[in-house]
Amino acid sequence: MSSETFIMEPIAHIQTDFKEKFGIPRQSGLVEELTARIVLEPYCRNPEALRGIEDFDYLWLIWRFSANKHDAWHPTVRPPRLGGNTRIGVFATRAPFRPNPMGLSCVKLLQVDWDAEDGPALIVAGADLLDGTPIYDIKPYLPYVDSHPEARGGFAAEKKDYSIQVEIPQELLNKLPKEKQAALLGILSQDPRPAYQDDPERLYGLSFAGFELHFKVNNGILTVMDMEQEG
Amino acid sequence: MSSETFIMEPIAHIQTDFKEKFGIPRQSGLVEELTARIVLEPYCRNPEALRGIEDFDYLWLIWRFSANKHDAWHPTVRPPRLGGNTRIGVFATRAPFRPNPMGLSCVKLLQVDWDAEDGPALIVAGADLLDGTPIYDIKPYLPYVDSHPEARGGFAAEKKDYSIQVEIPQELLNKLPKEKQAALLGILSQDPRPAYQDDPERLYGLSFAGFELHFKVNNGILTVMDMEQEG
Repeated sequence: MSSETFIMEPIAHIQTDFKEKFGIPRQSGLVEELTARIVLEPYCRNPEALRGIEDFDYLWLIWRFSANKHDAWHPTVRPPRLGGNTRIGVFATRAPFRPNPMGLSCVKLLQVDWDAEDGPALIVAGADLLDGTPIYDIKPYLPYVDSHPEARGGFAAEKKDYSIQVEIPQELLNKLPKEKQAALLGILSQDPRPAYQDDPERLYGLSFAGFELHFKVNNGILTVMDMEQEG
Repeated sequence: MSSETFIMEPIAHIQTDFKEKFGIPRQSGLVEELTARIVLEPYCRNPEALRGIEDFDYLWLIWRFSANKHDAWHPTVRPPRLGGNTRIGVFATRAPFRPNPMGLSCVKLLQVDWDAEDGPALIVAGADLLDGTPIYDIKPYLPYVDSHPEARGGFAAEKKDYSIQVEIPQELLNKLPKEKQAALLGILSQDPRPAYQDDPERLYGLSFAGFELHFKVNNGILTVMDMEQEG
């Protein structure tokens, strides 16, 4: 280890509806209806550390891709949105397999739960994180330096409006708690399939909010076939 | 160390005109005329790792506040822009003294120097980093998820237009290379003084681009008194 080795301990963990990677939106903010809860580690669990945070609409989360601890990185990756065949330099993507597997997500701050037993906790929207992901820093979003609406967004920008039509029988959707229904529709409309797969017969399984569901995609329409509570 | 201890090695170092903290803009992007050069570590020095990066206007740098390695963090900090007397929670600020002293900066990508001997190197604008700062990740700026011009910016937003008038004799300014002159004016107009100091007699020293200069601030006007090349 050199003197520039950076050793970090989590400051918090996030609670989300995703127990598996499959189905997580490819970036933060794509599905605003998704809510998550950030619980500070005991050594940071001090209301003072969040004083003034409610004056910001968005927060940055810096976290670790915890699902790929033991995988190597390569100089190029093949972004799913480009069909999986085009190679892009790892530093020109937000891909998880990078020299330091750090994630950067902008989430909307909905509320601070000051009085929770494990609080203060942050309730946020739009998080693209696996349940239990360790968070290493939380910073306020500063629009006057962080916002560049005119910026070119490379390959990602070309695909930003990508979404597919979703069909789900109402009786299946109603199994979910009301406040989770719009989030599920948002996740599915993002098309969770790897982009290079287009097999209308293939059945995909997705875990969300304690439910397991299956869907097919045919002719650009995603149809949910079944949905059951996980055991 | 727990299993969630995150151990990172630098992927790059940045070369800037700041040998000292004093004078560095308080956020990235505030002084667009500032240019810097990012040199990848040998193990990342592969043109493939940057393939496609020129399609993005801005990059995120995740780095370490290397000037404060041994300082402790506190739940609240006193942002200089608020006069130094108001306490804000550390997670509601971008202050350097935080549990994991990580910096997040959005810089403008000006050019990739593909053919440099230590290249490929990235030439960027607006960096608020000390010369030699280790960088742990570089990510593209994705406007469709990172840009929120309408976001509330808390205490920082209220002070965003803060700048002061700068007076510098032309013969002093001309000592600097032409391409550095606008950057110096930008830095000075940000008012590098700690906000709680307002002593018209006080002489401040600032190091920039190999020059040492002195200035005073009186009645909202910053006047450069002298400037010499550093020995």
